[in-house]
Amino acid sequence: MALKSFIQVHSDSHFPIQNLPYGVFKPQPGGEARPGVAIGDFVLDLSAIANAGLFDGPVLKNSDCFVQPSLNKFLGMGRPAWKEARATIQKLLSFDEPTLRDNGSLREKALFPMNKVQMLLPIVIGDYTDFFSSMHHAKNCGTIFRGPENPIPANWFHLPIAYHGRASSIVISGTDIIRPRGQGHPTGNSPPYFGPSLKLDFELEMAAVIGPGNELGKPVDVNEAADHIFGLVLMNDWSARDIQAWEYVPLGPFLGKSFGTTISPWIVTLDALEPFACDAPKQEPIPLPYLTEKKSRNYDISLEVEIKPTGQEHSSVVTRSNFKHLYWTLTQQLAHHTINGCNLRPGDLLGTGTISGPEPESHGCLLELTWNGQRPLSLNGSTRKFLEDGDEIIITGCCKGNGYNVGFGTCSGKIVPAPL
Amino acid sequence: MALKSFIQVHSDSHFPIQNLPYGVFKPQPGGEARPGVAIGDFVLDLSAIANAGLFDGPVLKNSDCFVQPSLNKFLGMGRPAWKEARATIQKLLSFDEPTLRDNGSLREKALFPMNKVQMLLPIVIGDYTDFFSSMHHAKNCGTIFRGPENPIPANWFHLPIAYHGRASSIVISGTDIIRPRGQGHPTGNSPPYFGPSLKLDFELEMAAVIGPGNELGKPVDVNEAADHIFGLVLMNDWSARDIQAWEYVPLGPFLGKSFGTTISPWIVTLDALEPFACDAPKQEPIPLPYLTEKKSRNYDISLEVEIKPTGQEHSSVVTRSNFKHLYWTLTQQLAHHTINGCNLRPGDLLGTGTISGPEPESHGCLLELTWNGQRPLSLNGSTRKFLEDGDEIIITGCCKGNGYNVGFGTCSGKIVPAPL
Ligand SMILES: [Ca+2]
Ligand SMILES: [Ca+2]
Ligand SMILES: [Mg+2]
Ligand SMILES: [Mg+2]
Ligand code: NI
Repeated sequence: MALKSFIQVHSDSHFPIQNLPYGVFKPQPGGEARPGVAIGDFVLDLSAIANAGLFDGPVLKNSDCFVQPSLNKFLGMGRPAWKEARATIQKLLSFDEPTLRDNGSLREKALFPMNKVQMLLPIVIGDYTDFFSSMHHAKNCGTIFRGPENPIPANWFHLPIAYHGRASSIVISGTDIIRPRGQGHPTGNSPPYFGPSLKLDFELEMAAVIGPGNELGKPVDVNEAADHIFGLVLMNDWSARDIQAWEYVPLGPFLGKSFGTTISPWIVTLDALEPFACDAPKQEPIPLPYLTEKKSRNYDISLEVEIKPTGQEHSSVVTRSNFKHLYWTLTQQLAHHTINGCNLRPGDLLGTGTISGPEPESHGCLLELTWNGQRPLSLNGSTRKFLEDGDEIIITGCCKGNGYNVGFGTCSGKIVPAPL
Repeated sequence: MALKSFIQVHSDSHFPIQNLPYGVFKPQPGGEARPGVAIGDFVLDLSAIANAGLFDGPVLKNSDCFVQPSLNKFLGMGRPAWKEARATIQKLLSFDEPTLRDNGSLREKALFPMNKVQMLLPIVIGDYTDFFSSMHHAKNCGTIFRGPENPIPANWFHLPIAYHGRASSIVISGTDIIRPRGQGHPTGNSPPYFGPSLKLDFELEMAAVIGPGNELGKPVDVNEAADHIFGLVLMNDWSARDIQAWEYVPLGPFLGKSFGTTISPWIVTLDALEPFACDAPKQEPIPLPYLTEKKSRNYDISLEVEIKPTGQEHSSVVTRSNFKHLYWTLTQQLAHHTINGCNLRPGDLLGTGTISGPEPESHGCLLELTWNGQRPLSLNGSTRKFLEDGDEIIITGCCKGNGYNVGFGTCSGKIVPAPL
């Protein structure tokens, strides 16, 4: 029989006892930030569980890793700590276990209705890297900007391309995104355009949250890379296409990206995703040995993007994609990132790049969906080439199990006007 | 008469009482990290001065900003705190002031011979950005890679181009640099090259250390940008040209840079550099209004790069350049960085890009000095196209005042072999 919690969980919930994703929250405004785990419509306060002495396994017994305003310390402890925490929490929440179930005063202290708490960035992010691992996205962007002959650069099939992103402007789901101002291509002999971005876009991504990491100069083997990944979040890499197009030669994206990046509050662990692992696409040519893994795995995670224009009652689904479409795996990304000796630290974030699938309706950004504005999308009566002020973008991600989901909740943000 | 300290300072020292650069040090291995100021051959321990109650001005009186393992808290306090600290320290160290001069036990606690202490990274670096602000460097690189017609991209004269760098691998002067491994361009139908970089290079740079910074969504005005810059350090942006050349299309440099970046330990403040301010080069075309400043200023800072091959007794000077050659000013870099709303935080690092001057001997990297390996440099009998294992690179920077220097000391690092 399936594992079940004494807390009632709807069958369509993203957060049954099989999931147990980690976040950081404040029970009320002004309260102290602390780690928590989602269970149904509740958040389990891990600092309360730790203070009650219920993390009693050998790794966590005397640790203060859950009495912290971020998950970084716990992430740095690695897989033995993660396994033990998951086992302890799953047991505590299970239907047959009286410890928490029958202790009213502890339940009072440790369980908060999710709709009452404030979710925060769960990690302190030292460095944020964004990859470019969907072949469909690379092909579409290349076709739009350079034409249909050789749209994908020669290096793309040999290495997981990436750039360093801006860590300071990563925000938690629900934070408004201020439309950036910046320069765009000049027309004729005029000076460059300057003003609010005219081509504001979302990018449907997921991101890996790094665990222990590695010392400078010591690469991580691709077959051991999974031990350095704690879990995944949903990510929206907001992009100003006009700013990006003008600035990116020769050093890559900068201000076209750095005004804001949104992540979802719940980190779903690789342990919870394990039942949804699937084979990654076949790679041709075969990558160099440092990128060749014994087993190349993706996860079957359904992803959706909705746009909700201001004043409209309903949102429109504009993208249905899946994590399994990624060409380069998370473990290949991580091995490549460290092959030159670059050090990763607990809490670092590795974005996958826009996750586009093969079908037109699975394109992960408006640049692709509207073919750079040439084919406007229709949304419940209005149309969109790019995002307008007031538009809210809602990303969801979910794995469908047998009678239960392992979901990510949502990653949302609303565009507000540029400063005058 | 010139300001003078009771501590004897050689006339060729970089650290007279006119300078007073900030760093973080441990008096002995295993000791606690704390902020200090360089004076001649000594380090003044600011935690000892603070604990003695000698920061008694209105801003710093009750602050613990000097009882910290980094300068970030002090940086975040802004110019009023910086001015007050400088005035207090300059007075305490001055020839006529008995407070410290005549207090033997305080001197014992607060002054350490510089050659006995261990210098550390002075700041926790949230984000590191590298600009591309030398026209000579942009022109040389463009000519080498794309030929002499239009070597500088069209956007270059309209905006200070930059990319996000890797913060985790920034190390303090004196740290060995492990030769990175990585992929290089395939030849013919072979797979890409994989192995230790064959084109390892230095880049002569300086970097601005950010003070208070700005809120997400609130750009900094170019005419107020100087208040957000605490001071400058020397920087060596080590670069693997073969890795960089193969990976950088279309998202910019990544593993070709992220294996290590070295900074000098002493942050020289803008206040100390003020006497060496000079006009920046005339800009044509005139930049957009958000980049147009009332006064466009550089600093006259002489820069040198020496290479010391392993086993050779003497180093050879390979570059003599100057900070004043930069086309885009620090304040323009900062205003551009924030114009899209991107937030800067205390301790963020903004590299200038390679500082090449107009003459061939002022080229700031081997790529330019040897014209991508085509014209080897001669060094005391040996030659170099790119760096070899055992080579030590030593960057120095110094402003020449009337009878005194305001210097940066050195920024050095030695290449050690790649892992097997
Ligand atoms: Ca992206
Ligand atoms: Ca550089
Ligand atoms: Mg972004
Ligand atoms: Mg570097
Ligand atoms: Ni001396």
